[in-house]
Amino acid sequence: MVTFDYAARRARLSEKLDSAGIDVLFLPASQTDLEYFTGVKRPAPTFGEIGYTNHWISGAFFAPGKDPLFILTRHAQEFHLPDGVVGDIVTVNESQDGREWFRKALDSYVSADRLAVGGKPLDETCGHEKDGLARIAVSGRTWSETTLELRSHKPDAELIVADGLLNEIRRIKDPQEIELMTHAARVADTVIADVEKMVKPGITELELAAEIDYRMRKLGSPGASFDTAVWAMGPGLSRDASVRLSTDVLTPGSGVSFDFGAITEGYCSDFGRTVHIGDPNAEYELVYDVVMAAQEAGRAAAMPGATGGDVHRATRAVIEEAGYGDWFRHRTGHNIGLDVHELPYLSEEDNTPLEPGMMFTIEPSVFWPGRVGARVEDVFLLTETGTVKINEHANTLVAN
Amino acid sequence: MVTFDYAARRARLSEKLDSAGIDVLFLPASQTDLEYFTGVKRPAPTFGEIGYTNHWISGAFFAPGKDPLFILTRHAQEFHLPDGVVGDIVTVNESQDGREWFRKALDSYVSADRLAVGGKPLDETCGHEKDGLARIAVSGRTWSETTLELRSHKPDAELIVADGLLNEIRRIKDPQEIELMTHAARVADTVIADVEKMVKPGITELELAAEIDYRMRKLGSPGASFDTAVWAMGPGLSRDASVRLSTDVLTPGSGVSFDFGAITEGYCSDFGRTVHIGDPNAEYELVYDVVMAAQEAGRAAAMPGATGGDVHRATRAVIEEAGYGDWFRHRTGHNIGLDVHELPYLSEEDNTPLEPGMMFTIEPSVFWPGRVGARVEDVFLLTETGTVKINEHANTLVAN
Repeated sequence: MVTFDYAARRARLSEKLDSAGIDVLFLPASQTDLEYFTGVKRPAPTFGEIGYTNHWISGAFFAPGKDPLFILTRHAQEFHLPDGVVGDIVTVNESQDGREWFRKALDSYVSADRLAVGGKPLDETCGHEKDGLARIAVSGRTWSETTLELRSHKPDAELIVADGLLNEIRRIKDPQEIELMTHAARVADTVIADVEKMVKPGITELELAAEIDYRMRKLGSPGASFDTAVWAMGPGLSRDASVRLSTDVLTPGSGVSFDFGAITEGYCSDFGRTVHIGDPNAEYELVYDVVMAAQEAGRAAAMPGATGGDVHRATRAVIEEAGYGDWFRHRTGHNIGLDVHELPYLSEEDNTPLEPGMMFTIEPSVFWPGRVGARVEDVFLLTETGTVKINEHANTLVAN
Repeated sequence: MVTFDYAARRARLSEKLDSAGIDVLFLPASQTDLEYFTGVKRPAPTFGEIGYTNHWISGAFFAPGKDPLFILTRHAQEFHLPDGVVGDIVTVNESQDGREWFRKALDSYVSADRLAVGGKPLDETCGHEKDGLARIAVSGRTWSETTLELRSHKPDAELIVADGLLNEIRRIKDPQEIELMTHAARVADTVIADVEKMVKPGITELELAAEIDYRMRKLGSPGASFDTAVWAMGPGLSRDASVRLSTDVLTPGSGVSFDFGAITEGYCSDFGRTVHIGDPNAEYELVYDVVMAAQEAGRAAAMPGATGGDVHRATRAVIEEAGYGDWFRHRTGHNIGLDVHELPYLSEEDNTPLEPGMMFTIEPSVFWPGRVGARVEDVFLLTETGTVKINEHANTLVAN
């Protein structure tokens, strides 16, 4: 079991909260922010939602200079936290009034002594300043039920989304995170080396996806980092990349694209290749080369100070010049860590300067229904001098 | 591909909204409510979150007597909705201002003509009544970013969580839903019949879980309905049921509990058995019988008009009388459908009368770390005259 220096992570959070004038932050147990700052793991992903009475209260409060206060359902505490938590806990059972206990927990956490840290004056004459709660923050995917309860309990406080602030901390990976994400990438490399040999006429996309997921688990990944996708495109196949997986039997003359990732200690990989069945036609060979050249152009453009938009435009330019711009229809990539898609994005609109320590995908494609489909995706680490490719599997053209 | 009568479902929603005085409801694309009322499928579950610029806008607005208005990111529309949607769509690309378009979409949807349906008087002199938006509802897991945008755009409207209202519609299953959920249960029955034979010393919990997931996919389930759990308990094993899966090698003298479910056309199953390795001791045999008797007592108590609390108490009583009450630590069950855990819950605090057409689990357990662990879980359908068991796999004691 890997243990991070969560106290150091919380110290950085504390500074950010203080300088942003945020008096208290709520992070729900349903998201990775809580895992990043406390080690309390996110719940396993489920296709059907799970739910418990008072479920919406689950998470923790954070204030500048204070240890977090957890508030959890009895069920979450007894059945979903085998490792416990560091800090105080308010436990709410299924027969208690969740609203009452949520309010009590917040009020006890932000009692007057916190102002010694936050540094704001206590105005005894003004109602909403009595507890110093001028600004409350939540992460952007906190449930509405929780958000509205904060709103109604503290109607005079400003209530804001803190995702930008949280991302500023999370987006720079430390050596330990880089090692874990390299391991997660290596699992994907190992799996594709076996599975690409199985890309033959007669097997179905679903069977290949099942093989990938099974092999990732055997290699120690507790699951897939996102839904494994396998899809064939080529002449005579009308399907688009929007159908990420089917029970279709693979046939000669198509390019079979893979998109999947493994998990190592909560950190994700995200990987892609295209394998051809039978001899590729001239257009597939051309497009395959164009996509590889596009990735290389993106990689070369990804330098400290460049933006995600810059990398996207450099990648796109290669595909546009080759005449396939209409069929490269998505962003070039995204940062990655505990979540698969983290900010900043390598996308037209993203103006965040890239910094050393960021890890991101570069994943150009040409998906032209009925004609050709090819894509490559690798994770890269940005250093002071440019990118280091984390995945090791070759990206030369494979035709079985 | 199964097609439900979504228009009929929306007609019931329309009535409920009207009688609750809700002028507009927002349902996010991230949850099953939108799938239930429109057929737009929830996203695949991912261990690491996926995200796109303007992602928080994705979903649809509903008002009494109107077709929904979807608002979606370009990316969601092009890559996650191969079947499209029924209704108007506002599409927002990654370079556009999500806030501006979200506001425009809502304002256009609730223009004055809607009042002909809602029946409320239009008071031209009162600001917040001008667009008739006195009450806006969201589902309880709508993201905070969306919720706060609704709050700031319509500061005078009441903003409420509509989960109770949505559940009133969803909790009664129609014949088509019952058929699909029976199929999902049958996949679980088929898989356990094979996998229970593999419960032998030397195999790991993780390997058994991987076998289950692999076999469910081969049988057509696009994944697991929730995280598959396999865990051994017994004399000398200190672990608790809170560790749902490990890489531990199974050893004789333990009871291995399974908890998993399949998916059929979006509908979930949820199933549990315990298989013993080697000859069970007297306490395991006793506890196994107690747990089966508890399930039977719960089943008998589950009649129309009884509450989830009643069923829970009837189930608990058997385990308490046998002296194991301290080790039955969770609720007895929950309704199930597109989500694994749906309201009402079969839990102490739940006072909702059960109705014919509800489908729920009854899943008592005795989990006593270092001593004994046994559990059974089946899905039941409630009819006018009592429960029908949907799972078919036997629950007699199995010892390999």
